[in-house]
This record gives sequence, C-alpha cells and structure tokens, in this order.
Amino acid sequence: MNEFELIERLTPGLPTNPSVIVGSGHDCAVVDVGLADRFLLLKTDAIVEGVHFTRETEPERVGRKALARCLSDVAAMAGLPAHALITIGLPRDFDVTFIERLYAGIGKLAVQHGVAIVGGETTTSPERIFISVALTGSVSKNRYTLRSGAKPGDAIFVTGHLGGSILGKHLDFEPRLAEARWLMEHFAIHAMMDLSDGLAGDLRHLLKAGKVGAELLAIAIPVSRAAKQKVRSALGGDGAIDAELDLSRPALLAALTDGEDFELLFTLASRDAVPLLDAWKKQFPKLKLSCIGKITAGNALTIRDQQGVRPLTVHGYTHFA
Amino acid sequence: MNEFELIERLTPGLPTNPSVIVGSGHDCAVVDVGLADRFLLLKTDAIVEGVHFTRETEPERVGRKALARCLSDVAAMAGLPAHALITIGLPRDFDVTFIERLYAGIGKLAVQHGVAIVGGETTTSPERIFISVALTGSVSKNRYTLRSGAKPGDAIFVTGHLGGSILGKHLDFEPRLAEARWLMEHFAIHAMMDLSDGLAGDLRHLLKAGKVGAELLAIAIPVSRAAKQKVRSALGGDGAIDAELDLSRPALLAALTDGEDFELLFTLASRDAVPLLDAWKKQFPKLKLSCIGKITAGNALTIRDQQGVRPLTVHGYTHFA
Repeated sequence: MNEFELIERLTPGLPTNPSVIVGSGHDCAVVDVGLADRFLLLKTDAIVEGVHFTRETEPERVGRKALARCLSDVAAMAGLPAHALITIGLPRDFDVTFIERLYAGIGKLAVQHGVAIVGGETTTSPERIFISVALTGSVSKNRYTLRSGAKPGDAIFVTGHLGGSILGKHLDFEPRLAEARWLMEHFAIHAMMDLSDGLAGDLRHLLKAGKVGAELLAIAIPVSRAAKQKVRSALGGDGAIDAELDLSRPALLAALTDGEDFELLFTLASRDAVPLLDAWKKQFPKLKLSCIGKITAGNALTIRDQQGVRPLTVHGYTHFA
Repeated sequence: MNEFELIERLTPGLPTNPSVIVGSGHDCAVVDVGLADRFLLLKTDAIVEGVHFTRETEPERVGRKALARCLSDVAAMAGLPAHALITIGLPRDFDVTFIERLYAGIGKLAVQHGVAIVGGETTTSPERIFISVALTGSVSKNRYTLRSGAKPGDAIFVTGHLGGSILGKHLDFEPRLAEARWLMEHFAIHAMMDLSDGLAGDLRHLLKAGKVGAELLAIAIPVSRAAKQKVRSALGGDGAIDAELDLSRPALLAALTDGEDFELLFTLASRDAVPLLDAWKKQFPKLKLSCIGKITAGNALTIRDQQGVRPLTVHGYTHFA
C-alpha cells in the first residue's frame, strides 16, 4: 500500500466540524474561523534525514526546505502565509551549531515571506533528525484555488522547468507565492496545485479531483537543464551539449516523474491561454510559463508526441512504493 | 545542552510579525487573525516510537496520546480546540492496521472535543514511527492564561495526582479543557500551564516567566497511586498497603519529577483559594484539586516538610539530558 492508498483509506473516517470548508485532499485545509472576508489555511509537512536531506546538506538549506515545502502548498491555494511552528526530532548527541544554522535557514525564508515563527518543540529522535512544520495562511473567501475544478477544454499550465530537482533545486526552490496570487487576481484559474511528487503523479490527483482526463503535449513539457544533466550523468556521458537531442526521451521521463519540482500546475479556460502568456511575460519575465496540454472529458491521461497519442503510464514519486 | 537551553538559544532570533500576541515560551502561540473578540491558538508537538510509546502499545492509545498532548496545551491557555493536522513518519513496511487503529484513537478523542482533523501528511521514517500533530484553537481576547503572571502571595494549585504516569496515565490522561475554561470564567487565574515534564521542572518555567519564586508544601503534593506503585516495584516490595508510609519520600520524588502528568498547574490570589476549592468540589467532584504552596518574591524554589524549608534541587524530565 503506498501513501496515497493509505490516505484514501484513512480520510473518510476523519472527524469534521462546521468550520471546515475543505479538509484533507487538497494542498492546504481551508477553515472558516469567523472572519468576514477571509478563510484560514492550515498545512503541515515533515522532512526526514536520509529521505529529504543528508547530514552533509548545509543546515541552512535543510531549514529553508522544511519551510519552503509548506509555503509551496499555501501558494497552491493562492494564499498568503502567516505563522509557522517547528517541531524537531534530534539525536541525543545533536550538534548545536547544525540546529542554529538550520533555524537561520528557516528564519531567513520566513522573513522574505512575512511569516512569523511562533513556536517550536524539540523531541528525541535517536537515528535521524526530522523537522515537521505547521503553517497557517489565509485566502480571500471568493478567491482561492483547489485541486478540483478543471474542466474539459481547459489549457494546462506549469511554471518553471521540471525534473532533476535532486541535483539541487529540491533544497533551493522558490515557493511560487507571488505568482499564484497574481494568477488568481488576474485570471479565472479553475484548478491549481503544487508539484511535489512529479508531474505525472500530481496531475493524476488534479484530474481525479476534477473527474476529468488530460492530454499532454510531449514537446511542450519544460524539461529542466538538471533533468538533462542527471540523465547525462546516469548514462556516463561527457556533458557535451550536442548530446542533448539523443537524451531527450529519458530527460522527458525525468521531467514527468521526478519529485520535488515545487512548481505550480494549473488550468484555466483555453480562451484565456494567450492573454495569460502575454501578461505573464510582462509580470514575471524571468520565470518560464508553459502550456503543456489540455483537459479532456473522461478520465484518461495521455501524451502526444511525434508517434501519436498514447496513454501516459509512468507515475511520480511515492513513499513506501 | 538540554532542550530548554537549546530553545532559549534559538528563540531570540525568530522572525515575528504584528499579528503575534505571544510567540514561543508558552504552551501555545497566540495570534490575532483579525477577529473582533477572539485570538487564535497554535500548537505543534510530536511523539516518537521508543521514546513516547512502543510498538507494543495499543495503537489507539498512541493516536489518542499524540492529540491529547496538544489538547493539554490548549487547555493550559483556557482555550477551545478546533482543528488538527497529522503528520506521520512510517517505516516502508508499515502495518496498515496499526495506522488505521492509530487514526481511530485520534478520531475518537477529536470527536469528544469537537476537533476536526483537516489534513494529514505521510512520509518515510525508516527506523521509528513518529506522529506530529498541529492543533489550532481559540481564546477570548480578554480571558486567556499564560505561564507568566504569577504574583508573590499567590496560592499554587494543581489538578489530579502526580507521578508514575509511565504506568499508564501517559497514554490515557484526560486533557483538562473544560476545567481550565471553567477556572478562567469563574476566577482570576494569574498564571497557568500544563505539566508535561514534571512539577519540579515545569514550575520553574512558570516562576521564571513570572520572575517570582515559590515555596511548596511537601505534604500537600498529591502523590498518585501510580507513583507509589512505581516506587514499590522499583524497591521490589510486595505491594502491601502498609508499605506506603515508608515509601512516602521516593514517591514524592516521583510526583515532583516524573513527566507526562498533563495536569493543570496554576496560581491565583490567596484570598480566592478557599472559594475556589469550595466551587471546584461542586463542579468537578471526581477530580482532586490541591493547593500545593505559595508564590514568593525572589526566584528561589523551596519545599517545606517536617524538617523545615530547604531548596528544591530536583528537576523534571528533559530530552537530551
């Protein structure tokens, strides 16, 4: 049983109350605490030594990553982050300097996004450091995004470049908070999520939530330089640029299945696609935005390349797989 | 460096923002999200296999404990809990039934207190299961309690019986939510916290926060039956009741230093002490309430017994000690 099957099995029995607008199944929970115009967002996430970072990783980057993952989930709802709490499990012989540097990394990113660190808890974790972050945020009651809501005919977009995150981006990615809020303010976004487990896997969640299918366009997937680099290393290549063409297919696979891209995946009506691309270029000239396919009726996920259209069979990253 | 020294070293550098009423250093953070009459409470906490429970512990009780610890912190602020998120780290070969039963334990307690479980996250933790809970709650803006605020002359109270929690109460304790709100509604509570690391250690935190000292009365400390039982077992006794007198001192030590009592510790003006005891007996006839000493000027923590007054040198539980 993988993590998604587990969550699906556990979710129906969870207690709720009238303040819950959206419970589990989206990037954040959405709750009504009684404010006139805003809902509260709630998110928790953890990273574990040896799984999400190693003891050799610079501690500032470990701390940064722990918070950035949650920030990316708030971005996925077009939210504004507010407060974070940090729970950290440490071996008994922990290195104080490591922890101070880790907190410095958390703190620096928190300041950038106006987030207050309002509490912490330490506990014993003999073999591995883990860091669990809880984050609050808020969204306008009539302007937030969910994973559900994609409609047949919608254009599918993704920010940035995908794949090869393990070479560094998994630590240093920028949560797309400003971009998501701008999108929501200027366009009718139908569905949005952040990419944490790889496009092929995450898109399936978005399709399932919206009860729709999708057709991706292989040539439009923004394959990252790191994805190509990763493939080149794996094949023992010498890194020459002219090798890129030959490697296009394995690199595409990496872009589809590698986890921890932390880019935004969203859909909107196809008539808005060109206006969006024009406005985006002016607003965020340094960040690529790609239309990678379209939402279809039914529930199939397919990919179109030079050979035609075929089912996309690959999946993203799962724990316990 | 123990956990308290670590937290003290990290806390001053943490980023804040204008919505933060109380950051770290109390049982929950208190933040202003813009409601007219209430503040939001935020708390996070984790339990780790082999530290807070074993793989032999009934999973329902493990789940219950994970949530109950956070509920106890909301109780310490006289708050009302609202939403919980669960992050769980699991070995790759995890037992689905264990996890389902664990969630059943969380869910049952959540229902009892009107708490919605609004999200979850699973991740890999190869050697040990850990469960991190994030909890929100709320308090009236003019009726909540902090650790600070104790005044010289205050009477010091504690609910329930202390010590020996390891024999079972650490799993099955009742978070004192209703009791704390009742206290705050009917009496001018000066300072309150929950007992998680043992009276001797936790009281020091309350004294430090209030810049005061305290004198405890040894005979008034409500030593639990479990504390006596624990001592009896440790001494290889036969459990005869008449052994209790001889064991009074080691059992008192357990009551002062054992962790995970999860009772309320609070102070109020000494003139309110008798009215409180009278009203409490009517309201909560089954739960003992004990006046265990008084707050003093200065910063000394002393204990009075038949031999006189002497400094209390024992401490509570600390991780990494």
